Amino acid sequence: MIDFDFSNVFRSGVVSRADFESQEGKLDSFLKQIDARNQGFYRVIDDEEMVTDIEAFSKSVKGKYDDIVVCGIGGSALGTITLRDAFANFFEKSKVGLHVLENIDPVFLSEALEALNLKRTLFLVISKSGGTPETLAQYFFFRQHLDKAGLVAKDHLVFITGEKGLLREVADQDGIPTFSVPEDVGGRFSVLTPVGLLPAALVGLDIRALLQGARSMRDAFLSVDFEENKPFQLAVLQWLCSEKGYSNNVLMPYVMKLRTFAGWFAQLLAESTGKFNSKGKSVGLTPIASLGVTDQHSQLQLFAEGPKDKLVLFLQVEKFSYDMEIPVLVESDKTRFLKGVSFQNLLHAENKATAESLTEGGRPNLMISLDTLSLENMGGLFLLFEGATAFLGEFLDINTFDQPGVERSKVLTRESLSECRL
Amino acid sequence: MIDFDFSNVFRSGVVSRADFESQEGKLDSFLKQIDARNQGFYRVIDDEEMVTDIEAFSKSVKGKYDDIVVCGIGGSALGTITLRDAFANFFEKSKVGLHVLENIDPVFLSEALEALNLKRTLFLVISKSGGTPETLAQYFFFRQHLDKAGLVAKDHLVFITGEKGLLREVADQDGIPTFSVPEDVGGRFSVLTPVGLLPAALVGLDIRALLQGARSMRDAFLSVDFEENKPFQLAVLQWLCSEKGYSNNVLMPYVMKLRTFAGWFAQLLAESTGKFNSKGKSVGLTPIASLGVTDQHSQLQLFAEGPKDKLVLFLQVEKFSYDMEIPVLVESDKTRFLKGVSFQNLLHAENKATAESLTEGGRPNLMISLDTLSLENMGGLFLLFEGATAFLGEFLDINTFDQPGVERSKVLTRESLSECRL
Repeated sequence: MIDFDFSNVFRSGVVSRADFESQEGKLDSFLKQIDARNQGFYRVIDDEEMVTDIEAFSKSVKGKYDDIVVCGIGGSALGTITLRDAFANFFEKSKVGLHVLENIDPVFLSEALEALNLKRTLFLVISKSGGTPETLAQYFFFRQHLDKAGLVAKDHLVFITGEKGLLREVADQDGIPTFSVPEDVGGRFSVLTPVGLLPAALVGLDIRALLQGARSMRDAFLSVDFEENKPFQLAVLQWLCSEKGYSNNVLMPYVMKLRTFAGWFAQLLAESTGKFNSKGKSVGLTPIASLGVTDQHSQLQLFAEGPKDKLVLFLQVEKFSYDMEIPVLVESDKTRFLKGVSFQNLLHAENKATAESLTEGGRPNLMISLDTLSLENMGGLFLLFEGATAFLGEFLDINTFDQPGVERSKVLTRESLSECRL
Repeated sequence: MIDFDFSNVFRSGVVSRADFESQEGKLDSFLKQIDARNQGFYRVIDDEEMVTDIEAFSKSVKGKYDDIVVCGIGGSALGTITLRDAFANFFEKSKVGLHVLENIDPVFLSEALEALNLKRTLFLVISKSGGTPETLAQYFFFRQHLDKAGLVAKDHLVFITGEKGLLREVADQDGIPTFSVPEDVGGRFSVLTPVGLLPAALVGLDIRALLQGARSMRDAFLSVDFEENKPFQLAVLQWLCSEKGYSNNVLMPYVMKLRTFAGWFAQLLAESTGKFNSKGKSVGLTPIASLGVTDQHSQLQLFAEGPKDKLVLFLQVEKFSYDMEIPVLVESDKTRFLKGVSFQNLLHAENKATAESLTEGGRPNLMISLDTLSLENMGGLFLLFEGATAFLGEFLDINTFDQPGVERSKVLTRESLSECRL
């Protein structure tokens, strides 16, 4: 169950309820425009065969590995990091360790290699194009060490990739198991394909629950009923605020296990909306990661008194899986207000107070509440933001699903490397 | 050795070299204004007695603990997280685990408790005021469990706090060892006091090296020579860019071990600069955390084509402690450019290319380079940004060292908790 409270956006005075409701008329046409873009992210979640294949593979390798290592970057990494951190214990190594190597830092990679027992490790190499240089470099590195150790590649590697490309060719040649990233699902929208689902299943998460939650938010996303379409409502508010100069979107979960969800959200919002619109104008929303209550002691001063350019999206879990009363061992002015209060009470009170103080200061904010931190709700959250982002693209007059702005840097990288070899 | 390359700010066309150099005249008066604010952050690093006390304590408890747990939030936590992550192995638990509990999330705290062997754990409770409610709540929680386990409090607790306050009273009563946070050093400037130095020393870091690097940057910070005063130069660029609308400061290290340095930087910049100036106007710079090469596949699209409101601060390590050639196992168009290239080469080439592509697009960016990731350089980095932030406050006409904007939320928290108990 995911609940929404958008009232502080209106109370802040930045957007009126009338402005908000006046956008209702765009819902129908935007849904048609999105449909015409032929994107699969909200359709792939019905793919029963995909789920069956993932479950069958996970079952077949059960007990064979101590560590699962994802070689991937961006959309091939961020969904898995989110899912791992949302459902793992922070301090205990789970039965199967899940590591996401989302960088090419040589120290990072060599420390990973050193810590792994290759005989008991499965590498998931993830690249939709099959040609992401950073991911190929990681693959080559670990493959060389697998070969040196005399291990059979196909027992320690799985490729998750598109229908074509270099990884596909290697897989065919070496008999490496593969899973497909559908052609019509972009990297940053791919968490509910094998990209995110296979790692999740391999560490024992119930991917059917995840997909069920996603499907019910998908139904809301496709609804022509304004009241029901929360992704559209969210996009309307993000867009109206950005039109008033509040184009920085702070995601501030008040729950430790959703801390890295901000990374997934950041890619989705940044890469989807930050671009030239059809008139050549730079548009886009800038994601900023935050964490309650922690960052009340860090960023809140800026959010409360700094430039009026931020919309704060609070993310709350109503009932934590564990809670305990704060034992007030020393009575004083500083501690009396903590008596009879649980950690969850204090956390929620601080969240509410932060939201209220921002609202009083004329700073827009809204609340998204999960009743519990469940797989269903995580699936719903993914679809909520994916859907909202799709609508945002229509408001901003851009193609939500491309990323032309990173090409130049790729060309320059190749040039600079060819220079350094001369 | 820390090097600076500010040329891309000028090449981007956003700030001219003449504008930059014309600020030189303010250096002298700003140094006097900063001196008049009576801040100790650049003086405390000469305190030999502080260092000796920390070293003596660390030596006296050597081998007694498997885990060091910091109970603290904001400035009591972020410096330690930075130092731990900069100098620890990512995948191996070091001989002594260092955990920083910077939140009151009940699941997070209970998972920590479950994982710890209290008999072999030392808790560092850190609060300058001695009355931070979140930190007191954590202290009460763990103290209750220490007492229940029949353990002697003073053998498992150290308080790092100011001269007065609740923690000081408890320490006096129970004989708990304490270290002082100097009155004239604010939380977000306190990493080079016992707040950051004691945890660092307890896990075996050479705090003298850290302080030595800090001192040499401090000398630059106090220099009236514009050429030499890199903290001032950095502040000039941050300020001039913000005046032109580029008030978002993206910190983008191209090294995994500096990833969490962004959290320390975020608090410093946000809490110091985001406030009302003397004319009541909202001012401030907004920190945004990023990571190379990882976020080239996430935020770069936005930085390259989105709103022109960002200055990107790249942070580079010239020589990693380990490097290896990328073994190009499959030759193709996608991989040929990787031949003869090391991971470090590729990472640097991508950094350079990203900077160049932003510059070409008229987007300001600058480079700060560490020759190696050493303790000296980390000490220098802390002082660099602390110094620059002190100057920024003078440019912005604010008090860098207060945080009035978070008070309202504290009052509302108390009100809301008293309601919930009725």
